[in-house]
Amino acid sequence: MSNPTAAALIIGNEVLSGRTADANLNHLARRLNDCGITLKECRVVRDDESAIILAVNALRTQYNYVFTTGGIGPTHDDITIPTIAKAFGVAVERNLQVENKLREYVGARLVPATLRMADYPAGARVVWHGEQYAPGCIMENVIIMAGQPRIMQVMLEAALPMLQQGQPTHSRQVDAWVYESQIAEPLEAIQNRFPDTDIGSYPYRIDGRPGTALVARGLNQQTVDSAFKAIEDMLADMGAETRAA
Amino acid sequence: MSNPTAAALIIGNEVLSGRTADANLNHLARRLNDCGITLKECRVVRDDESAIILAVNALRTQYNYVFTTGGIGPTHDDITIPTIAKAFGVAVERNLQVENKLREYVGARLVPATLRMADYPAGARVVWHGEQYAPGCIMENVIIMAGQPRIMQVMLEAALPMLQQGQPTHSRQVDAWVYESQIAEPLEAIQNRFPDTDIGSYPYRIDGRPGTALVARGLNQQTVDSAFKAIEDMLADMGAETRAA
Repeated sequence: MSNPTAAALIIGNEVLSGRTADANLNHLARRLNDCGITLKECRVVRDDESAIILAVNALRTQYNYVFTTGGIGPTHDDITIPTIAKAFGVAVERNLQVENKLREYVGARLVPATLRMADYPAGARVVWHGEQYAPGCIMENVIIMAGQPRIMQVMLEAALPMLQQGQPTHSRQVDAWVYESQIAEPLEAIQNRFPDTDIGSYPYRIDGRPGTALVARGLNQQTVDSAFKAIEDMLADMGAETRAA
Repeated sequence: MSNPTAAALIIGNEVLSGRTADANLNHLARRLNDCGITLKECRVVRDDESAIILAVNALRTQYNYVFTTGGIGPTHDDITIPTIAKAFGVAVERNLQVENKLREYVGARLVPATLRMADYPAGARVVWHGEQYAPGCIMENVIIMAGQPRIMQVMLEAALPMLQQGQPTHSRQVDAWVYESQIAEPLEAIQNRFPDTDIGSYPYRIDGRPGTALVARGLNQQTVDSAFKAIEDMLADMGAETRAA
């Protein structure tokens, strides 16, 4: 059986203007990998209704899950919830349980805008978590999370047990002090012998010295190990100096 | 006249598996912003032919420019060049000038795979730059760059003068020790008074203390300054403690 698939949808002008360097994609990618959910694609869009609707509707029909980050909150630029409701053709509804929690947490600081954080697309499941007063939510197969990395991470951990999970990917890496072109041909031959293992090669330089990271990844640990052994043998045959990654 | 628009297309399994945290999007976003090119969207796709073709064809018809990173090189997992050629329905051609440079640079280390880096989609313009032996290229409105940040940055600087540029975005930011909900309503009123200025609000916590970054961005410096003054006045009226961003 193959793993569930997923896409990430990062919503925020600040990422596309360069003001903010996104930190959520890498965290999400690693955690989904641990859980056997295969992240196939990511899109970053502006805080723009039609851009969000187009992306969420394209992704939710194509993948098992869509994880969104950003645009959650009480200010005018936080449009993710009403926009995803619109993408699903449903209304926005205030959740009374969340509203009560918010009133309790915020106390005298409460203003009408605060309660926007108790609004969800009709039919969404609330993702309760301990630390924050504003829970995330899951609308059908779309997991809606905050943009602040600390809060996003809490919401993700609360959502993951509610999702179908698969087999974790096995990955092995070795770094060698070789030019990528030196190993291109033997590496391709190894890839052809192990079609179910993804073999990647990532060149870099350290203090001007050329190195290449070689990575074998796949769902079957034995096949990954065999492919990795073939890579190690190739490097040994070449007399390449290696180092553990 | 409005600025040219752009999309980024990040090609690479390693970003979606979480092995690598992408560093190119933020750099690209900042440099395009400086040059008056408006980055509207970013997609991250796997090293997969059909995923790349779908994305590049969707983006190149929708935006003035598409900037791709990754999948350039001599190994089997470097499929960006032949795949973009396929997306345009053209052949891959070896550029003799680049081939000569490669032969000169690589010398005795040359293997057939090395010369893959002299291959371009037919009709592409080579983007020469001083530092690396493998230049980037521009295929119609698609700027094809390496994935290694150091090389990507060199290729981008060489490509930018070949593109149409617009007006830089003006941006002003102030940080205030307020909850986002406290300023939600007056901030929305300011946004409504200055519809051509994007007003964003980004909450954070430092040592548990809640703060919010308030940002005004737009093409007209005077309007951005006026909107920013309105934000500063609002914070002063509330007695909020601020600090320069």
